[in-house]
Amino acid sequence: MAQLYNRVALIGLGLIAGSMAHAMKRAGLAGEIVGYSRSAETRDVAREIGLCDRVVDNMLDAVDGADLVMLCVPVGAMGAVAAEIAPALMPGALVSDVGSTKGAVIEAVTPHMPAGVHFIPAHPLAGTEQSGPRSGFAELFDNRWCLLTPLEGTDPEVLSRYKSLWEQMGSNVDEMDAPHHDLVLAVTSHTPHLIAYTMVGVADDLQRVTDSEVVKYSAAGFRDFTRIAASDPTMWRDVFLANKEATLEILGRFTEELFALQRAIRTGDGEHLHDYFTHTRAIRRGIIEAGQDIDVPNFGRNAK
Amino acid sequence: MAQLYNRVALIGLGLIAGSMAHAMKRAGLAGEIVGYSRSAETRDVAREIGLCDRVVDNMLDAVDGADLVMLCVPVGAMGAVAAEIAPALMPGALVSDVGSTKGAVIEAVTPHMPAGVHFIPAHPLAGTEQSGPRSGFAELFDNRWCLLTPLEGTDPEVLSRYKSLWEQMGSNVDEMDAPHHDLVLAVTSHTPHLIAYTMVGVADDLQRVTDSEVVKYSAAGFRDFTRIAASDPTMWRDVFLANKEATLEILGRFTEELFALQRAIRTGDGEHLHDYFTHTRAIRRGIIEAGQDIDVPNFGRNAK
Repeated sequence: MAQLYNRVALIGLGLIAGSMAHAMKRAGLAGEIVGYSRSAETRDVAREIGLCDRVVDNMLDAVDGADLVMLCVPVGAMGAVAAEIAPALMPGALVSDVGSTKGAVIEAVTPHMPAGVHFIPAHPLAGTEQSGPRSGFAELFDNRWCLLTPLEGTDPEVLSRYKSLWEQMGSNVDEMDAPHHDLVLAVTSHTPHLIAYTMVGVADDLQRVTDSEVVKYSAAGFRDFTRIAASDPTMWRDVFLANKEATLEILGRFTEELFALQRAIRTGDGEHLHDYFTHTRAIRRGIIEAGQDIDVPNFGRNAK
Repeated sequence: MAQLYNRVALIGLGLIAGSMAHAMKRAGLAGEIVGYSRSAETRDVAREIGLCDRVVDNMLDAVDGADLVMLCVPVGAMGAVAAEIAPALMPGALVSDVGSTKGAVIEAVTPHMPAGVHFIPAHPLAGTEQSGPRSGFAELFDNRWCLLTPLEGTDPEVLSRYKSLWEQMGSNVDEMDAPHHDLVLAVTSHTPHLIAYTMVGVADDLQRVTDSEVVKYSAAGFRDFTRIAASDPTMWRDVFLANKEATLEILGRFTEELFALQRAIRTGDGEHLHDYFTHTRAIRRGIIEAGQDIDVPNFGRNAK
C-alpha cells in the first residue's frame, strides 16, 4: 500500500469522514489529512482525539492545496459547500462526496465545479446508528460496498486512483449510474429507514401501551427497528427530500403489499401469509452467503 | 435452586421448548423432561442431541404422569393439542403454553381443560430467527421478560411455583390480562414482523433491482429486516390470524403515520421529518438503559 493523495480535505467530521480518516491512516493513503466542520464543538472534539493531522477553522483553509476534497456533509448541504469551496479548489484536484443519494448531489454540486477540477460522486454503503466525530472507526468500510456514479467523460486515471482509495480503505467498489443507484438505495436503505422510523414513532405515541412497556418488551422484535430509527435525523431528512421519487415509488409498492397482507389477515387467508413468509427466508440466506451479515442468532448480540 | 416439577412434558420441540429443556437442566428444575413432536424427524434429532431425558412417539405418553405440561406448538395448533391430551392429564397438573398471542390460545385451550387441572398461559418474549430442535440454548430467556396472563381464580400457589420456574430459567416475570398482552405484542412484535416480511418481499419482487443487488447492498439497513423476515412461517401465520384485531389496529396507526411522512416527503416538509426522526432516538436509549439491547454500533456484529 502506498500514499495515493498528498493532502486530503475532509469537509464535515461525522461518522463517515471520521472512519475515512482512520482507514486512510491504517493504510497510509494520505500525506496529510486536514479536517473542517462547521461546528466549533465538533472541531474541538476532532482535535482532542487527534482525528486528523490538522483541523482548521475555515473551510477554504481545509481545501487549500488538497488534491482530494471529500464532501462529508448531509446531502442537503452539498450544493452550498461546493459553491463556497469552488474558488479555493486546486486545479487538477478531485472532489468527491459520500452522500446517500446521488442524483440530487450531482445536480447540486456539478454547476459549481471549476474547469480542471474533477468530480466523482461516491457512496460507501456502511454506517452505524451513531454519529459525530467520535463514532468513526477504521474497520467501517471493510468488505462493505462503495458505489461510484461517475459522470460522462470522467478521466479514467483519476477514477482508477480514487477507486483504489476505497479498496485500500477496505471496500469493494462498484460503478453504476446515479438514477439506478438512487432506486437500489431506496430499496435497500431509504424505505427500510422510513418504515423503522414510522414504527418506532407509532409505538412511542400510543396511549394504551406505555413507553415503559414498549421498552421492557422490545426484545420481541421491535428493538431491531429502534437501532435504525436512532440514526442521524438531519442526514435522513435530507436523504428523503433528495431521493423523493424513488422513495415514493418503493413506498407505493410497499403499501400495496402491506395492504394485501392486511387483507389476508382480515379474511383469514393463512395460505397467502404462509407463502409470503416462506419466500422471504431465502434472501436472508443469500445475504449471509455473500458475507454481508453474520450467521448467528439475533446478530450474535447478548444483552445482559 | 431446587427441583420444581417431577416430570415436565414438552409438546413440540422447537426453539422455545428446546431452550426450556436446556434452561431447566441448567438449574435442575425438573425431575424428568419428556418430549414429543408430531414430526418423526424432529423426534429423531431431539434423541440424537439428547435434548430431553426421553422422547416419546405418542403425545399421550408424554403427558402421562407429568405435573407440568408445556404446549410449545404454533398458536393455531393449541386447541387440537389440548383436546387430544385432555383425557391423559394428571389431576393437579399444570398446563401452560408459550404462544405469542394469549386471547386466542385461552379461547382454544380452556374448554378442554378437565376439572382439577390448572391452566396458566405464558409467553416468553425471547427468540431468534432460527427454529427447530437444534436451535434452542439455555441462555435464551436470561434477562428477557416472560408474560403470564393468569385467568380469574388461578390457584396462587400453582402460579407462584410456575413463576419461579421462569425466573429460575433466567426470565423476569410480569403478569397482565390477555387483551392487554395482545395489544402490547401487536406493537412490540407482531406489526414489526409483518412490516419486515413485507419490505423483504417487496425487495425480492422488484424487476428493476436485481436480487443480487439487494443482497450485495443490504448492509445499508435492509439486512436488519431480513433477520426478522427469516422467522418461522407457520408460527407467524398463526400469530397474525390469532391476533387479528390488535394487529389490524396497530397496522392502521402505522399506515396513518407512514402516509403523513410520505406526504411530508412529497411536499418537501423537512421540519416534519426532522422532528419525527429526532423523537424516535430516545426510545433506543431507553431500551439500552433497560438492558434489553447492547449499546454497540450495528449490534456489535462484524460480518467478514
